[in-house]
Amino acid sequence: MFAAGRVPAAVDDAAWLQAMLDFEAALARASARVGIVPTEAAEEIAAACRAELYDVDELGRASADAGNPAAPLVKALTAQVGEEAAAHVHRGATSQDVVDTAAMLVAKQALAVLLDDLHAAGDACARLADAHRETVVAGRTLLQQAAPLPFGLKAASWLSGLVEARTHAAACDQQLAAQLGGAVGSLAALGDDGLAVAAGLARELGLTEPALPWHTIRVRVGMLAGVLGVTAGVVEKIARDVILLAQTEVGEAREAGAEGRGGSSTMPQKQNPVGAVAAAACACRVPGLVATLLSSMGQEHERAAEGWQAEWETLSDLLRLVGSATAHLRVVLEGLALDPDRMRENLDRTGGLLLAESVVTALTPTLGRAKANKLVTAASKEAAAGVSFHDALMRVPEIAEQLGAHGVAAALSPESYLGVSSALIDRALAAHHRDD
Amino acid sequence: MFAAGRVPAAVDDAAWLQAMLDFEAALARASARVGIVPTEAAEEIAAACRAELYDVDELGRASADAGNPAAPLVKALTAQVGEEAAAHVHRGATSQDVVDTAAMLVAKQALAVLLDDLHAAGDACARLADAHRETVVAGRTLLQQAAPLPFGLKAASWLSGLVEARTHAAACDQQLAAQLGGAVGSLAALGDDGLAVAAGLARELGLTEPALPWHTIRVRVGMLAGVLGVTAGVVEKIARDVILLAQTEVGEAREAGAEGRGGSSTMPQKQNPVGAVAAAACACRVPGLVATLLSSMGQEHERAAEGWQAEWETLSDLLRLVGSATAHLRVVLEGLALDPDRMRENLDRTGGLLLAESVVTALTPTLGRAKANKLVTAASKEAAAGVSFHDALMRVPEIAEQLGAHGVAAALSPESYLGVSSALIDRALAAHHRDD
Amino acid sequence: MFAAGRVPAAVDDAAWLQAMLDFEAALARASARVGIVPTEAAEEIAAACRAELYDVDELGRASADAGNPAAPLVKALTAQVGEEAAAHVHRGATSQDVVDTAAMLVAKQALAVLLDDLHAAGDACARLADAHRETVVAGRTLLQQAAPLPFGLKAASWLSGLVEARTHAAACDQQLAAQLGGAVGSLAALGDDGLAVAAGLARELGLTEPALPWHTIRVRVGMLAGVLGVTAGVVEKIARDVILLAQTEVGEAREAGAEGRGGSSTMPQKQNPVGAVAAAACACRVPGLVATLLSSMGQEHERAAEGWQAEWETLSDLLRLVGSATAHLRVVLEGLALDPDRMRENLDRTGGLLLAESVVTALTPTLGRAKANKLVTAASKEAAAGVSFHDALMRVPEIAEQLGAHGVAAALSPESYLGVSSALIDRALAAHHRDD
Amino acid sequence: MFAAGRVPAAVDDAAWLQAMLDFEAALARASARVGIVPTEAAEEIAAACRAELYDVDELGRASADAGNPAAPLVKALTAQVGEEAAAHVHRGATSQDVVDTAAMLVAKQALAVLLDDLHAAGDACARLADAHRETVVAGRTLLQQAAPLPFGLKAASWLSGLVEARTHAAACDQQLAAQLGGAVGSLAALGDDGLAVAAGLARELGLTEPALPWHTIRVRVGMLAGVLGVTAGVVEKIARDVILLAQTEVGEAREAGAEGRGGSSTMPQKQNPVGAVAAAACACRVPGLVATLLSSMGQEHERAAEGWQAEWETLSDLLRLVGSATAHLRVVLEGLALDPDRMRENLDRTGGLLLAESVVTALTPTLGRAKANKLVTAASKEAAAGVSFHDALMRVPEIAEQLGAHGVAAALSPESYLGVSSALIDRALAAHHRDD
Repeated sequence: MFAAGRVPAAVDDAAWLQAMLDFEAALARASARVGIVPTEAAEEIAAACRAELYDVDELGRASADAGNPAAPLVKALTAQVGEEAAAHVHRGATSQDVVDTAAMLVAKQALAVLLDDLHAAGDACARLADAHRETVVAGRTLLQQAAPLPFGLKAASWLSGLVEARTHAAACDQQLAAQLGGAVGSLAALGDDGLAVAAGLARELGLTEPALPWHTIRVRVGMLAGVLGVTAGVVEKIARDVILLAQTEVGEAREAGAEGRGGSSTMPQKQNPVGAVAAAACACRVPGLVATLLSSMGQEHERAAEGWQAEWETLSDLLRLVGSATAHLRVVLEGLALDPDRMRENLDRTGGLLLAESVVTALTPTLGRAKANKLVTAASKEAAAGVSFHDALMRVPEIAEQLGAHGVAAALSPESYLGVSSALIDRALAAHHRDD
Repeated sequence: MFAAGRVPAAVDDAAWLQAMLDFEAALARASARVGIVPTEAAEEIAAACRAELYDVDELGRASADAGNPAAPLVKALTAQVGEEAAAHVHRGATSQDVVDTAAMLVAKQALAVLLDDLHAAGDACARLADAHRETVVAGRTLLQQAAPLPFGLKAASWLSGLVEARTHAAACDQQLAAQLGGAVGSLAALGDDGLAVAAGLARELGLTEPALPWHTIRVRVGMLAGVLGVTAGVVEKIARDVILLAQTEVGEAREAGAEGRGGSSTMPQKQNPVGAVAAAACACRVPGLVATLLSSMGQEHERAAEGWQAEWETLSDLLRLVGSATAHLRVVLEGLALDPDRMRENLDRTGGLLLAESVVTALTPTLGRAKANKLVTAASKEAAAGVSFHDALMRVPEIAEQLGAHGVAAALSPESYLGVSSALIDRALAAHHRDD
Repeated sequence: MFAAGRVPAAVDDAAWLQAMLDFEAALARASARVGIVPTEAAEEIAAACRAELYDVDELGRASADAGNPAAPLVKALTAQVGEEAAAHVHRGATSQDVVDTAAMLVAKQALAVLLDDLHAAGDACARLADAHRETVVAGRTLLQQAAPLPFGLKAASWLSGLVEARTHAAACDQQLAAQLGGAVGSLAALGDDGLAVAAGLARELGLTEPALPWHTIRVRVGMLAGVLGVTAGVVEKIARDVILLAQTEVGEAREAGAEGRGGSSTMPQKQNPVGAVAAAACACRVPGLVATLLSSMGQEHERAAEGWQAEWETLSDLLRLVGSATAHLRVVLEGLALDPDRMRENLDRTGGLLLAESVVTALTPTLGRAKANKLVTAASKEAAAGVSFHDALMRVPEIAEQLGAHGVAAALSPESYLGVSSALIDRALAAHHRDD
Repeated sequence: MFAAGRVPAAVDDAAWLQAMLDFEAALARASARVGIVPTEAAEEIAAACRAELYDVDELGRASADAGNPAAPLVKALTAQVGEEAAAHVHRGATSQDVVDTAAMLVAKQALAVLLDDLHAAGDACARLADAHRETVVAGRTLLQQAAPLPFGLKAASWLSGLVEARTHAAACDQQLAAQLGGAVGSLAALGDDGLAVAAGLARELGLTEPALPWHTIRVRVGMLAGVLGVTAGVVEKIARDVILLAQTEVGEAREAGAEGRGGSSTMPQKQNPVGAVAAAACACRVPGLVATLLSSMGQEHERAAEGWQAEWETLSDLLRLVGSATAHLRVVLEGLALDPDRMRENLDRTGGLLLAESVVTALTPTLGRAKANKLVTAASKEAAAGVSFHDALMRVPEIAEQLGAHGVAAALSPESYLGVSSALIDRALAAHHRDD
């Protein structure tokens, strides 16, 4: 439930281990390229940088003593290669270089999957938006019926959120940078070759080359956290709408139910919106983790004594939860079944009262907004007391005079009061496809 | 202390009130431009949109009953203008349109100040970075002395954080968008003119025109929160470094003390780093507020029944605290007094031990990193027991042979082990100035 | 909206100022009692400890320079009294002693109001619980109708939350302690009289005397934050239930609407649950503030350089929001109007399907839970396809045989499936009254 | 590093699985006791409630479809027993009853370990407090030396935090309650036996019997979270103090270093305070998780559609991190090595300036606090300019007259200015032992 889709595998212990090894391989090769490590040694090191050669549990235990996972890995890697190559393992780097670069590699792979799932969820929304330009549903504000809108606009609105999240996540991906600074960020252990090795390392790994080492300037981590938080927020919004639409008393949408899915252990009749609930539950765990990463940014001097260490698991959890939330949502949206009859039935439930604003709008050009509002409010109250809203409106002389029975009826037709919904849907679709 | 600099005035009640009125004025004018409101009426409305005409406290009280601050303001504004103009006040808009657009206007003004203070703080860092390329200070990891670096690189690192925060804040500023959707986001009350009015409104206010209304898609609010969180994180990092450098036992930097500033009520000798403490205290209150805004993103249907309302004060607090933190930091950095003698004294305190890595680096080409590391570690331990580190190193035959007394002395000179610091300082300065 | 009820006035600047003055008055008197300050001087100091004698804004500005609000106040108080008394102002105390004790006094007054509002809200729930023992409503899990329960049990459940919050808040109140430690917690400036003065101070102020000064051991603040967070959580739960019950499609409850309350600026028909929305919006801002206070607990050595300062405004905001949330909720509950007809109508909406578990329960003694569940699930599916649930059940031979038409009808009667609800209601009422 | 000590094993998947099985066993037995389940069936069920009989990974996968882990477990357990017993598995319970009760059982076991580690950490502090009543160290406020105190008082202060955390955690443990409410909290599926079964269940499991089912009243979870947050705050405070004391420039304490522990991958001379860093890193991840649990309290109607599900992993993470933080701290405190010579050296570094308050205190009885403060401040400034503080003080006629050279020297002796430290240490020790 909290490890759904493909992100969890991209952020597990094995993925981190491989990413740390990828750093060491790339460092060796980049160093070879500038001539400070023999090419054969670099290749021997790179060949030993395969996760399956190491015991991830044992490295984990050793991490506690070292205070970070890089130190024991460097030791193990050094032991794995011949004496000649061993002399060149990890040259010029510090533990944090390994761990930070690995974090960026892990994030990069997780983001790739996340972007894909966001896109697929967007595709599903786009289909709903396009198909339901005419399907009228009650718009709800503060969970009260307010005015009608096409379901397609609702889906287009969801889509716009997914597109925006995708855009920000993609921009964030561009800022994932390699880390190479050595002990205190001066690259001193690489002499004059520091910048060249750092540039080569980034190129080797497909990461951005930062202007400066960023050991204690954690803007990258903070921005990534922020974007993941925003993505979770969008997912939660859509998932909650689905849960609310699926309420027994609303019944306008339900999740595609595989056999056994969403059933209750004791209530045979239930069909719970388990996918949306899972998405929302993953998403609502995200803001606390974002706060943790932001709180950890005040890192001391050249390497922190708390804030940096707190990042590792938190970042993995964050990626995993946002990835899982999005994976759940994608499934929900791809299988969402709508019930336009229930939408219409719900719409009719207030006897046209949710078109009160439509009547005000029709009257505004002649009576002004304030007066129109006052007259319609009075009629609404009468209608609440039992009269039909149409009749209540017609009893008001000014309204009857300005609109006539036909005008009132037209103003009370939901289809007549959808504004520029279709153009807005087009905009959302265009933004989705532009971003492809 | 928590309302320092110029941001607090940009986010106070009066600023919000004026921003809401700016929305109404711009809406009237944009509507006039498309011909649905008479120009004279629009101008009369616009003329009444001055905050000083309204009682902000009374509006505040009325907000509670209405559930938002826009409804009573619309009423008051309607009463302020003649009957003809009154008919056109707020036409086509919903309360959330007013409040959301006002929030974006308030944020825009606060960000302008924030960007300016970030830039000025960056200028101060840039001066320190350039002036202290040769001033050697102990680099500290986990608060232990690790290896030397020029203080200029430390300042350049701070600068890089400020530049990155500024870049992200500026990008965020570009995404602040007007809001106009009407009751349920379809712009139905504006008939066919909805899109034209929405575009005109944004132009009028200098805000971005969004593709769709974003009543319950709160990506803009979430991203703004994230960027503010990251900015606070950068400020906290620098402020903490200043506090740590100002420690009695370290004494490498202190804040410029105005008369009476930083004194203690009972301890006459104290000179507290009050500016840095205030900056850090403001900053550490930020992540919780970011989490609140992210948690509020799951907004129901067409208008939320909790999450939206929770945004208003939170966003003001967030802007105020980040603005105050940055204002404090600017003052601290502009007046920061360094003590290079104490830096050198502290550097010498370990008898050269913090150059152990330098010795390893010098030995690595011939002995390999692992062996070099082992030999130097052993010598470090002897040195810890009383011998001078230089002598301890010379007692190791392989070291003595490879480096000789001169080589050892050279490796133990901090100035010889600064790597590419100066080039990195240049990069930070270039990024700062490029961003001007 | 975010400053409702009586807590806001208990935590505003004037309240803090008076609380700080109360500390100084109590310190002078306690010192007089042990003989280290002349009684006349103590009384002169105490007489000068009235907030109206000081300019709260000016003190606020001076706080920024001093790094805390106590130092300028001590100066102003010293200037307010004659030379003889001036010599004894603030003797033995440090700034943090003033601010921490003031925080506890402010919290104590805010808690008193909060406890009262929690009790009144509980009274309203108690009335609902007792009055609606027989009013059947659909129980909803994951927002799906699950099984019936009396509305009284729902109200009793709310009540149990309010009682628990009240119990924890009352316990917390007992732990609010005076602070007197002097510069570093040793009370050195009071010589041998430190403990006696500290004890006298606490007695004077009606606060608990702590075993040790707690300048950087912030358990009291953290626990208070936690309890306030829990209280907000309970309020949010109830407020959300009200919002959900008030949905147009559910319509089982609505807030008492004063004239103009809960109306929309554009939709005349709307009656928004503004009280519940306000309560929920206040409450959902709380967890972030709790996290800020918990994050601030890691305070350095004898006085923090960030965490302590971050507490002041945060604690006020926290008390204000929880107080406002509770004040809103109290009003909502005291005026809540129920619609038992709509409850019944909603209950009937699934044609008895939400009594599926009841049928399973009736069958379990003879068929076993698993088999009963399987048979009823199958009948539920048929019922979903159009047949009445009663008929669908009777078509299953085992069910028809075991229960007969009468038995099936009985199992499908909501009133017959309320378990021990009434006893549980009694328990909730008893707990509420026991706690009086 | 984030899974240290014995709590992690108490909250892992196997522990949760066994706890859920313990619920089912206890339910069967409690039902047998009231006669609604045959004793043999109950015993057969109980015998099948051993975690090793089930595939935890497979159950995990099935949970996602069911929306909770209880439903698939009930199915698996039903399959594990004979047909007769199968009929009685899980009778009267709902999935949330299983999961909530399991959460409380898991928490109970984790708290037992946590309390033990808190106690042991307290023992270590108690030893330090008692042994260092005379070891004078510089008290530091805002990281500036302020006034001396005995290191024993510092340790006593730490101890008081640990004792308070322990007290609150123990009180919390008493509130861990069984959950049994059935589908909607009415216990309807158990007919008249609901209360008796619920009471028996709690007794069977050693948990408290709640007044009412608490499916959506999450005070227990919130309070547990709050107390864990407070505990983490205390741990972080102490850990940070250790990190600060271990700074190269302070050097007053260091962790016992096992071979290879705390070393750097590249800086041979380093001995990092890895235990304290690990403790602090675990602890600083806690507030975000607490906020998540508090944010999740607003649970809808009879079972939440997001907030409940979000609790499971969060609670485990919270217990694990607080448990690990405490386990790390215990090791740190049990092995903490102090350096009283460095303490004295640091104390002397300001030439007596940190005894300025002591001089003020000595002068206050005759000159009054304000005048004494002014004269000593002036002398402090002269001293900062090079003169010895003693001489600077003697140059002030009023001071020389009131105290004489002897009096000044006495006031400048740290040992003479420790106030009631020893009595406070006694109080802390007494509280620690009273709580045993």
